[in-house]
Amino acid sequence: MINQQYKEMLSGKSVIRELSEYATARGKEIGYENVFDFSLGNPSVEVPEEFTNEMIRLLKEEDTMTLHGYTPSLGNPLFKEKIAESLNERFGMNYGPEHIFPTTGAAGAISHAVRAVTKPGDEVIAFAPFFPEYRPYINGAGLELKLVPADFSSFQINFEKFEELLTEKVAAVLVNTPNNPSGIAYSTATLERLSSILKEKSAKFGHNIFLLSDEPYREIVFKGADAPYVSKFYDHTLSCYSFSKSLSLPGERIGYVAVNPACEGADIIVPMCGQISRGTGHNCPPSIIQQAVAPVCGLTADLSVYETNMNIIYDTLVELGFEVVKPGGTFYIMPKALEESSIEFCKKAKDYDLIFVPADGFGAPGYFRMAYCIDTEKVERAMVRLKEFVEKEYK
Amino acid sequence: MINQQYKEMLSGKSVIRELSEYATARGKEIGYENVFDFSLGNPSVEVPEEFTNEMIRLLKEEDTMTLHGYTPSLGNPLFKEKIAESLNERFGMNYGPEHIFPTTGAAGAISHAVRAVTKPGDEVIAFAPFFPEYRPYINGAGLELKLVPADFSSFQINFEKFEELLTEKVAAVLVNTPNNPSGIAYSTATLERLSSILKEKSAKFGHNIFLLSDEPYREIVFKGADAPYVSKFYDHTLSCYSFSKSLSLPGERIGYVAVNPACEGADIIVPMCGQISRGTGHNCPPSIIQQAVAPVCGLTADLSVYETNMNIIYDTLVELGFEVVKPGGTFYIMPKALEESSIEFCKKAKDYDLIFVPADGFGAPGYFRMAYCIDTEKVERAMVRLKEFVEKEYK
Repeated sequence: MINQQYKEMLSGKSVIRELSEYATARGKEIGYENVFDFSLGNPSVEVPEEFTNEMIRLLKEEDTMTLHGYTPSLGNPLFKEKIAESLNERFGMNYGPEHIFPTTGAAGAISHAVRAVTKPGDEVIAFAPFFPEYRPYINGAGLELKLVPADFSSFQINFEKFEELLTEKVAAVLVNTPNNPSGIAYSTATLERLSSILKEKSAKFGHNIFLLSDEPYREIVFKGADAPYVSKFYDHTLSCYSFSKSLSLPGERIGYVAVNPACEGADIIVPMCGQISRGTGHNCPPSIIQQAVAPVCGLTADLSVYETNMNIIYDTLVELGFEVVKPGGTFYIMPKALEESSIEFCKKAKDYDLIFVPADGFGAPGYFRMAYCIDTEKVERAMVRLKEFVEKEYK
Repeated sequence: MINQQYKEMLSGKSVIRELSEYATARGKEIGYENVFDFSLGNPSVEVPEEFTNEMIRLLKEEDTMTLHGYTPSLGNPLFKEKIAESLNERFGMNYGPEHIFPTTGAAGAISHAVRAVTKPGDEVIAFAPFFPEYRPYINGAGLELKLVPADFSSFQINFEKFEELLTEKVAAVLVNTPNNPSGIAYSTATLERLSSILKEKSAKFGHNIFLLSDEPYREIVFKGADAPYVSKFYDHTLSCYSFSKSLSLPGERIGYVAVNPACEGADIIVPMCGQISRGTGHNCPPSIIQQAVAPVCGLTADLSVYETNMNIIYDTLVELGFEVVKPGGTFYIMPKALEESSIEFCKKAKDYDLIFVPADGFGAPGYFRMAYCIDTEKVERAMVRLKEFVEKEYK
């Protein structure tokens, strides 16, 4: 029989998607250059030409059967080796290739990591504001998501509420830094305190609580931000990465799980991920993409536009009297709306062709998210419009 | 805590993998050209140059952000359209793009299809001989696999046993034609009888039993074989396809689910697959591969070598007195061993550097599988060795 659970999921509407579709439709009416669409987190910078050149080289020079043949089920050896090297060099880690499991982006990485260190029925803690897809990732593995409410003053961790929720039933804790939607990076102090609580509670409960670190925005960090590598702070960490943002390759579905070599089960978690794949039909990211990313995994696209945009937007928001925490990275910012309901606020903004997403679905009611992965020229024009909107509606 | 189920799966050894590793090691000793490795089902023909050219064209001409950007969650529109057109033209179907869901190969296709039409706890029937990965696919979705024993005379369906197992608890039936490991294609008569039983039992039980058709070998069909398109026979069919064999692209993980337009839920199954992806971290096959396969989806690699090889092997087996059913397609053949234990038989063959796989794990004890996706020249030399082996050990 048709599965009722998935059928019912169809009626859930995505606010982001609706807004993005509205923006596209509106763009057809008045010209897309006149719609200030801050709804979608799609990278807006070119893919590095080193990646493109490597793809073409592989296609021209390699034997087609080797190039497009099955990769080993635990991943292409060169990809694993290069990732480990790059992480070791940049973050002073000591990964070996055996700690790297290639996945179809961060979604694939989280889905594997969370299954490896939990059993159905366990609880997983995440922190508001949070990426709403965590719900299906966690529920899809038969787990229960417990959400720590946001610390609205800084968007660091609300430790009081965290400790209340951190019971014996919690198998893993999921963090996302730099964060979608707030743009905030967890500081050294935050990660030290998080680690110390996890160690204390692991000892108390007699089992290690695993830390899953979702870090697709790791490479988009702004000047002066304190945004350290999460796995440095806590041994039992599985880092979940995606090249979607750093190389502007979201459609190619390429990322990995990196298991801290000191993690419980560090020698078996990657092989276990291979077993997990068999049950979900995942079976490794594409061969050619693994091979082309391997030599360029230490590069990034030119990500500077995101910081330029952030500064323009942040300054304007402050000038206009918005309550807002300055992002440390990503291409998001999450100000407080100028009225209680951010849904009403975003609805009014739409009349000025400013497309913002209410952050209620991210666990931050009263706030709204702006994704500023767009041209700086358009950001500048949008700020003029934003001033007009605020002056007319809220002064 | 480390998940025990996946940890225990690590101790299960893959017979095929062990044999293949043995063959590689042995090749290093005596030269790989002297090891007659029939263990692995890896395509042995070049990828069509039309695919390679289209990849290079996309990389050179397209805007990188569009080329590598997120595809819509239900798939690239051109890919869906071209697949539907190609299936309609070749098999007289009437698919629309809305019936096609792109997946990471047939593994991804089966994993989505089976979740869409069952609920955890339901039963799924498959037929021996069968692809052993069906077990993790089915169990991974929380379902129970019921296996119909083989009809050893023809490797068509053992209908008597099938009807015994086809109770009210069965939500779906999974077929694989042309078949791995037997090489046999289900005939028109077989599919007509299967369809008629499914219709009768669906009516009796008051719910439609879905038919999942796993068909990665659909394009590898030999002269004179009766190998019709499964979905023509039964409305409630979800066809699960992969380009791994037809375009020699196993590493690129590209395939699809095609939902028969007359199937119950035909309008919602593809959107439901999109929801299923959210819980498994699958999220669409890579963007560039979808785009490059779209215009070449009606082509195949030059698959004629498989038929040439099959004929050489089949004739030799018959000449040597093996009991064997002539394959209608694929690149497999599954003769009966010359002694009761096929494990013993294959062990002895190994001493002659003939690497065969005992078919016990495929649900056909006493038989063995030969994957003849290798050069014809090597097949010919292998037949000389096979004669020597049989004459020395069994005459």
